[in-house]
Amino acid sequence: MKKKPYKKFPKIPTLYNTEIICGKANIKSISRLDLVIVIFKNYANVAYLTTKSNTFAANIKWLKVNKNISKVKVLMANSGNANAYTGEEGYFNLKTIIEFLSNRFNCKNKEVIISSTGVIGEQLPIKKIIKTLNKISQKSIEKKNMDWEGFANSIMTTDTFPKGIYKQTRIANKVVKLVGIAKGSGMIAPDMATMLGYIFTNADLSSKILRRLLVEINEKSFNSITVDNDMSTNDMVCFFSTREISNSVKNVNDKALNKFKKDLQWLAIELAKKIIYDGEGATKIIEVNVMGARSYLDAKNVALSIANSPLVKTAIAGGDANWGRIIMAIGKSKAKFDQNKISLKFDKNLILKKGKLNKKYNEAVITEYLKKNEIRLEVDLNYGEFSSKVWTCDLTKKYIEINADYRS
Amino acid sequence: MKKKPYKKFPKIPTLYNTEIICGKANIKSISRLDLVIVIFKNYANVAYLTTKSNTFAANIKWLKVNKNISKVKVLMANSGNANAYTGEEGYFNLKTIIEFLSNRFNCKNKEVIISSTGVIGEQLPIKKIIKTLNKISQKSIEKKNMDWEGFANSIMTTDTFPKGIYKQTRIANKVVKLVGIAKGSGMIAPDMATMLGYIFTNADLSSKILRRLLVEINEKSFNSITVDNDMSTNDMVCFFSTREISNSVKNVNDKALNKFKKDLQWLAIELAKKIIYDGEGATKIIEVNVMGARSYLDAKNVALSIANSPLVKTAIAGGDANWGRIIMAIGKSKAKFDQNKISLKFDKNLILKKGKLNKKYNEAVITEYLKKNEIRLEVDLNYGEFSSKVWTCDLTKKYIEINADYRS
Repeated sequence: MKKKPYKKFPKIPTLYNTEIICGKANIKSISRLDLVIVIFKNYANVAYLTTKSNTFAANIKWLKVNKNISKVKVLMANSGNANAYTGEEGYFNLKTIIEFLSNRFNCKNKEVIISSTGVIGEQLPIKKIIKTLNKISQKSIEKKNMDWEGFANSIMTTDTFPKGIYKQTRIANKVVKLVGIAKGSGMIAPDMATMLGYIFTNADLSSKILRRLLVEINEKSFNSITVDNDMSTNDMVCFFSTREISNSVKNVNDKALNKFKKDLQWLAIELAKKIIYDGEGATKIIEVNVMGARSYLDAKNVALSIANSPLVKTAIAGGDANWGRIIMAIGKSKAKFDQNKISLKFDKNLILKKGKLNKKYNEAVITEYLKKNEIRLEVDLNYGEFSSKVWTCDLTKKYIEINADYRS
Repeated sequence: MKKKPYKKFPKIPTLYNTEIICGKANIKSISRLDLVIVIFKNYANVAYLTTKSNTFAANIKWLKVNKNISKVKVLMANSGNANAYTGEEGYFNLKTIIEFLSNRFNCKNKEVIISSTGVIGEQLPIKKIIKTLNKISQKSIEKKNMDWEGFANSIMTTDTFPKGIYKQTRIANKVVKLVGIAKGSGMIAPDMATMLGYIFTNADLSSKILRRLLVEINEKSFNSITVDNDMSTNDMVCFFSTREISNSVKNVNDKALNKFKKDLQWLAIELAKKIIYDGEGATKIIEVNVMGARSYLDAKNVALSIANSPLVKTAIAGGDANWGRIIMAIGKSKAKFDQNKISLKFDKNLILKKGKLNKKYNEAVITEYLKKNEIRLEVDLNYGEFSSKVWTCDLTKKYIEINADYRS
């Protein structure tokens, strides 16, 4: 994808009492950063959302078994192996790592969170991982692998660029920081959280408020993206507060949070969109905006039906103004509507108005529009008041190449 | 696809009082058979199932408006244009064709059924069609375009071979014929009927019995295949009885129908599988057999989740024994199960037994197995008594090529 700004890793300042250490454990045999630990020296409050998959990984099981983890000292993330569908041995390995980390950093086991991404069904190279953790948690660690970009690099799989984002915002009259880090390229489908995503703030917010905020912003960001409609076994989004900047916020509806919420939603959407920009084989990002639906679920249903349709995605990849396939995808959704009322636009170009082809419709204009990197589809069902916006990418031969040959 | 037997168009005998006439209307500008009429000189009883799409085409609307069509004199089918999402003009064009045919063949409008396939959202070239119908319904028509293979050719779009099948069967002690014709290659997803399919018998069966039989056999054949999870606006399956061979069958549970039912189910499955063999860009047919589910719906849900997963389909295309992706696809289905009980086989090769990797598992054996043209996956959830079998194909670069460039 040529759209440079999305690829660029921004300058992200350090966070109070938060240390990042990355390492190379050669989990998948190639020498690259594949392991990161984040130490919250004075603990962080935390909230998280995890995959709805029923074949969830060992680290997700850890969060299910230890309900209500609200305070953490250590976050570990690795790429190269998902530790998913690894049974008792996999869970034992996970606990071995957790015990190592809780010992090393003087905290309880329940104050450690792990996230993993990579191949499913293979056991973790546990010795390599412990050896690397032991080495990098010494004081002698190289400084260069201790920043946000190192973190983002450590969790990449088929990703082609590290994904980070920064926003300075405010709670009441105090300046606070928001940092987002994510990975994701394939096996991206929205159901709860669909990738690895981490948001950090130095604002002092309770785990309860973090959770309410995360649920609120997740739906319109991480839950509104899809690359291939395949949901990961390891998805999670975590939201950490390093508790530096105090405030008087007592509940999530406090007006003092308004600007913070708005900026948090923006940050989550931009981070989610970076995943789509890096969708496996993608050459275009596609925004699907559905309005006029009878309910939010109907709107999202139609939007995802379009965003997941291989025929729509290949047509856009080929620059073919084949809007009939969008009609097909709307039709196969389970939403309720009247096909004679559908309006359809490609960006500002009107194709259908209430079921009728625009008399001024000129295919050449759409063909030209489809040469762009960012495509915007707008569907108005004219059947209600609800809307949904989702993002996807086109489907190209490169997606096949990556997935027919790459062991992910 | 190299598997020759599937490509071969079998010898199919003529049916009593049934005339097939094909023609070239140049609907999509290329000179090829693209129009066929079947005249049931002494009427046929009929039953049909149509797409569940909410953006259904004009011909589907005709069947919805004229409820309970049970007797037909003329079937017309065309390729090159689906007459879908063509509004009032499209419906008017459809009625023009119907009126022409009912006049020409001395029947009522309600005794004509039309099916169409091709591009969505463009108006039919109605003048060309009427002109061609006029010409081919004269006596002087060339004999060579008056057979089942001509019919199957006339309805092809991205299909690479015409699809037909024949079975001689029996009702009680009388020999009867079963003929199946279908088209389909892309935009194939199972929800009611997912392509154009026609089954003919010379056994004298009422429309009511035909319908009951069609519903019974459709679920495990046409409704159990998927190429790309995209459902057509024009799908239909029709079942015609030319009423030649009388019998004493009064209801669908009559034991005299047992052999006929079994052969009908076989014929429908084989016809459906021909569509998968010709799946756009396919190099392999994949049978997904899910058993041990809590309900039939759960079994089918898991089977389709695997069969529709781009990551499973690309792994198989690439010959990659990445069984973790099958676990991922099982996990994202909405079915209820326990991940520690799943057994998984590639044909006879055991990978997982009740959640545990088979100690004798040898990846090289699976890699070798994946070189075959026919792949069989077997999942036992060990969670109940229900099973489902569905068919799909692998996902290759050729699918992208066909759909990024072809205006379907």
